[in-house]
Amino acid sequence: MKLRNFVVLMLFSSIGEFAFAQGFVQTQASPSGKIVLHFQLSAQGIPSYRIDFLGKPIIAPSKLGLFLESGQLNQGFKLIQNSSTTFDESWQPVWGEVASIRNHYNELKVKLENTTGQVEITFRVFDDGIGFRYGLLGKAGQTGELSVMEEQSEFAMTGDHTAWWQPGDWDSNEHTYTTSPISKIDGRVYLKETSISTQFIPDYRACQTPIAMRTTTGVHLAIHEAALVNFPAMQLNVNPATRTFTAFLVPGAALWRKAIVPVGFQTPWRVVLISPDAPGLLASKLILNLNEPCKIADVSWIKPTKYVGIWWEMHLGKSTWDYGGTQTGQSAQGSTGHGRHGATTANTQKYIDFAAEHGFNGVLVEGWNTGWEDWFGKWKEDVFDFQTPYPDYDLKGLAKYSLERGAPIIVHHETSGSATGYEKHIDKAFDLMQSLDLHAIKSGYVGRIIPKGEWHDGQWMINHYNRVLEKAAAKKIMVDAHEPVRPTGLHRTYPNFLASEATRGNEFNAWSVGNPPEHETILPFTRGLGGPIDYTPGVFNIKFSEYKPSPNEYQVHTTLAKQLALYVTLYSPLQMAADLPEHYQKHLDAFQFIKDVAVDWDDTRILAAAIGDFIVTARKAKGSPNWFLGAITDELARAQSVKLSFLPAGKTFVATIYEDAPDAHWKNNPTAYRIRKVEVNSTSVLTLKLAAGGGAAVSLLPKE
Amino acid sequence: MKLRNFVVLMLFSSIGEFAFAQGFVQTQASPSGKIVLHFQLSAQGIPSYRIDFLGKPIIAPSKLGLFLESGQLNQGFKLIQNSSTTFDESWQPVWGEVASIRNHYNELKVKLENTTGQVEITFRVFDDGIGFRYGLLGKAGQTGELSVMEEQSEFAMTGDHTAWWQPGDWDSNEHTYTTSPISKIDGRVYLKETSISTQFIPDYRACQTPIAMRTTTGVHLAIHEAALVNFPAMQLNVNPATRTFTAFLVPGAALWRKAIVPVGFQTPWRVVLISPDAPGLLASKLILNLNEPCKIADVSWIKPTKYVGIWWEMHLGKSTWDYGGTQTGQSAQGSTGHGRHGATTANTQKYIDFAAEHGFNGVLVEGWNTGWEDWFGKWKEDVFDFQTPYPDYDLKGLAKYSLERGAPIIVHHETSGSATGYEKHIDKAFDLMQSLDLHAIKSGYVGRIIPKGEWHDGQWMINHYNRVLEKAAAKKIMVDAHEPVRPTGLHRTYPNFLASEATRGNEFNAWSVGNPPEHETILPFTRGLGGPIDYTPGVFNIKFSEYKPSPNEYQVHTTLAKQLALYVTLYSPLQMAADLPEHYQKHLDAFQFIKDVAVDWDDTRILAAAIGDFIVTARKAKGSPNWFLGAITDELARAQSVKLSFLPAGKTFVATIYEDAPDAHWKNNPTAYRIRKVEVNSTSVLTLKLAAGGGAAVSLLPKE
Repeated sequence: MKLRNFVVLMLFSSIGEFAFAQGFVQTQASPSGKIVLHFQLSAQGIPSYRIDFLGKPIIAPSKLGLFLESGQLNQGFKLIQNSSTTFDESWQPVWGEVASIRNHYNELKVKLENTTGQVEITFRVFDDGIGFRYGLLGKAGQTGELSVMEEQSEFAMTGDHTAWWQPGDWDSNEHTYTTSPISKIDGRVYLKETSISTQFIPDYRACQTPIAMRTTTGVHLAIHEAALVNFPAMQLNVNPATRTFTAFLVPGAALWRKAIVPVGFQTPWRVVLISPDAPGLLASKLILNLNEPCKIADVSWIKPTKYVGIWWEMHLGKSTWDYGGTQTGQSAQGSTGHGRHGATTANTQKYIDFAAEHGFNGVLVEGWNTGWEDWFGKWKEDVFDFQTPYPDYDLKGLAKYSLERGAPIIVHHETSGSATGYEKHIDKAFDLMQSLDLHAIKSGYVGRIIPKGEWHDGQWMINHYNRVLEKAAAKKIMVDAHEPVRPTGLHRTYPNFLASEATRGNEFNAWSVGNPPEHETILPFTRGLGGPIDYTPGVFNIKFSEYKPSPNEYQVHTTLAKQLALYVTLYSPLQMAADLPEHYQKHLDAFQFIKDVAVDWDDTRILAAAIGDFIVTARKAKGSPNWFLGAITDELARAQSVKLSFLPAGKTFVATIYEDAPDAHWKNNPTAYRIRKVEVNSTSVLTLKLAAGGGAAVSLLPKE
Repeated sequence: MKLRNFVVLMLFSSIGEFAFAQGFVQTQASPSGKIVLHFQLSAQGIPSYRIDFLGKPIIAPSKLGLFLESGQLNQGFKLIQNSSTTFDESWQPVWGEVASIRNHYNELKVKLENTTGQVEITFRVFDDGIGFRYGLLGKAGQTGELSVMEEQSEFAMTGDHTAWWQPGDWDSNEHTYTTSPISKIDGRVYLKETSISTQFIPDYRACQTPIAMRTTTGVHLAIHEAALVNFPAMQLNVNPATRTFTAFLVPGAALWRKAIVPVGFQTPWRVVLISPDAPGLLASKLILNLNEPCKIADVSWIKPTKYVGIWWEMHLGKSTWDYGGTQTGQSAQGSTGHGRHGATTANTQKYIDFAAEHGFNGVLVEGWNTGWEDWFGKWKEDVFDFQTPYPDYDLKGLAKYSLERGAPIIVHHETSGSATGYEKHIDKAFDLMQSLDLHAIKSGYVGRIIPKGEWHDGQWMINHYNRVLEKAAAKKIMVDAHEPVRPTGLHRTYPNFLASEATRGNEFNAWSVGNPPEHETILPFTRGLGGPIDYTPGVFNIKFSEYKPSPNEYQVHTTLAKQLALYVTLYSPLQMAADLPEHYQKHLDAFQFIKDVAVDWDDTRILAAAIGDFIVTARKAKGSPNWFLGAITDELARAQSVKLSFLPAGKTFVATIYEDAPDAHWKNNPTAYRIRKVEVNSTSVLTLKLAAGGGAAVSLLPKE
């Protein structure tokens, strides 16, 4: 399935290497030489690195190391060995933003030893950033396990860059982003917002990754990790005086014993993305490249999916998750329920029919299984068995019907945070799915974690999420995880991992202060760097006042046209059309874009972007000549000139432009849109007028 | 019992008050005018304060406020009312460092209101610092409870002062102190030391209170709190760029809902001590003055106590806590036990006899009750019942014998962190003590807290510690709490609260890297500001190599003479002579000082001190003409000239000087001491030569 073309050159050379009395210095340039890594071992045996970009430091000297329970791995080192390698490969993802990805880097390995043991640091230097990781080799002859107390990797910034950040929450990524200088990062601003039921921010000077930054000269940076396996998530502590970030590992119930790993363990990759501009950050495939190749032999059953489902109606309060009739999106926020179960046989048939009629290939059904009366906020281990349907839900009949109509049911596995509760039943639950020929789940981790004492982002839970992915792969099940740790590119290795939430999704607009118009212009530069987002766009009934007590303070902070554009600007192989069928029926002309838009791509072009301001993205549908373009803005109206030079030369396309009406405005007039068609070619320039909080979506189909 | 002389003047005056368009400013000076508080409400309704000391800012403008779950109490305020008061009272503590304490302050109250409710901030301005607290008054007519998410009190320093600090551990105060500029506070240095079994430091930029500081001009500062009741302990987040500390409340199992308090609740006092020199910090009684007066009507049964006990021998590994024979101080650290139970009837009788012979009035017995086989590190709720003795321990007979010999048993109540386990049995356990006529407990909280999810310093545990104090008071039981929250002057209100550990006590020298020689020169300026420390000094057998595997890496980091001096320099009404009787038998001449020294005082003089370097303290025994003097140093040898001008003029005293021998040294020769007697009077000057890690103790008894 994968055509690989790779060259490995082992260079035990002395390029840039010079040792002297005060220590040891080794440099490693990226393939083009744009980025140069400087590794140094000081006279005290302290390892550090520096990164230059285009000849100037972009990461100032930054220490490296870890603390084991058995001793320090951050000083007193002597150099044992060093080697350089170059690597160049192109590989084809099972699904993705582009058809082929080049993995081209120069690697430097340094093996160090002190009284605590050996550590091997591997640096991979790409043209768009670097990754490094630690191999914890132990002492000579050591076997068994190592207890990791902390990591001390530093990321010293060269100035007080503008940063887009979320606070260092151990349980949630569902915060809005704050834009501030690094020195002003302070999680206390998040005290105002209590709509995230499970959150914990013990350190106000910590932030999550991915974090995006921009220097005064316009260089863009992001820090994240890749291939998070058997280790806690990394957060960053901020020193506002030195603008230095230092790694912080999220604890679990063992508290300061943050990770127990075998001798020989390789940590996840620590990643710094570097780009001369904002679009370059979005185009980077570095994080994917640092993940292991696909481990699934037969991937024929993995299908990018566009789906509808029984979900938003609970958030609106129209129906309930539970049969008993109290679990609406509102009851979670304290108001009373309506007593109308959403996942009935009839309602599910309605959604299946709607999906089939409009070409969707998935139908999510939430609230189909028993347990919902007992789930919210109770911190209870045994809630769901993931097998027993409510009496008004015809499990087998609906599965069969959905398959017949080409829109198979996506099975909802909400755990209410009880990972042990899920693991008790997961084998039988997956067997049940296999027997029904259903191949997709949406999992959920709303609530405090069980085992008690664990947090969403600690080592135990990281291993749980990955166990679920592996089990699902073995049973040919695709996974859309909600409320898990934020992704780190593992979908390269497990392409059944279609998408995850791990973000402040569209749902927050239903019952909280919601997501400001700038939110979606930040997401791809932060959370999106780690993997696809199941953001659930496509809400047409933006103010939904018929479902809410009057006066309704809630709405989606968007125009209708922007909701369409999100299908292009927010990449995911799994995209929901979140709204209710009856709301789409009122705007079938606009709905056509959601029907047309692809969810898998041969090519992607980030045409223009400024973090927190606007994004214009064009993508070519996989195996098709069709292109789709999305443009979104924040709370400010903008006009975007878009050159269509990405189109094949000499070919005429019909552009269908779904755009904000001249009087559209996210707050005052969100559903005012217009649709026009023009013929264009690769020399055309489109001018898209985006309303405040608005956007534009364009389908570009070859004429004829 | 208490002779009070107080004057209350209500001043609804306009002293220093001037309101203008941009807000409201009110100043309040201390009685002498040395310290001036400036309160300001900005045009945005943000409250803040500033403190001037001798005409210059010592606390820069610092914001005030809290976050409730229901809204912000930190901005948008309007002024409702303000008033000033002066207060002057002298009160006599049941026991203490001085016989009478003057409580003299000027008070400013400001009542503010915003959309979240009313808050009343009370400032008390003393000549040695200030205290402030918040009254959470709620909205008009509001009843019920308020959920406090965070406090935002700031303490903005005017420079990068030298600070003596411990990391922001939610479970332990058992760390060494680090001396660094404020900007360098970083808890990662504590990763090296893993000998504290229950610790949790989620934020490396946080530190505990009390924290002591010194400015470049020699002004000394400390930040702490007073009267911690029904609220979490306050820690301080540090911004190294601005040198601003901000309050951080320790969470409990409810995580970000850090405190649930009734409408009308008054928070604990936030305290800034200010002194022109180091001795002034130690002399301050401000924290006691901010606590409520004694709530115990009959205090006749409360007795300052000097005790010996079955304890250090377990730390040495000579005997075990448990009957089964595995629970030594070593087994806690991983080595195997010796199988010799310490708390036998015969051994206890030996200690009682030793105590009686040498004039001690208490004998601690640890390991007397069943459960120890099951306690360590198991995080188990039901471990001890605090009532059932081991079969080799004659509970009733020993209680009777200890009373007959005048050295009543101090009953050990180790909870192993299971507060709920303790509360299940506490009433019966206290009844048992009453039936035995025993009136003192040493409680312990080693291990992770139960209820699981709680930390030692969260609101639930604060309420537990205080419940135990109140229950004990009702049953006429004195309390010495180990591993609780650090004290905040509550012993004024509950003088049955004799002492607590909440520090890195002498025991760490038995099985860890121990306490550096400077440790005891820092303790009184930090942990000691909150209340008496049960530090357990008096170890004569300093290297104890006969008990440890050879080569023995452990020792107390002290000279023998310094161990004597600690009975004076480390204030407590409860002092142990920690070593074994057989070790005292070898140095009965030096032991005489421990026998003579008082544990309750009429007067105290801090004669010289530099934090982290040395302390020289003299105290006059309660109701006696005898004075005792202690001088200690850090790892540097020093000569201290001590003027005895505190002695009554014209009276001759016999000074017995217990001092380091000329060749003494804490590491090389710790037990080299000499004793000399000289006649002195108030014009005399003693020169005390302190060895490296050494000290000197002097008893000053009237001639004839």
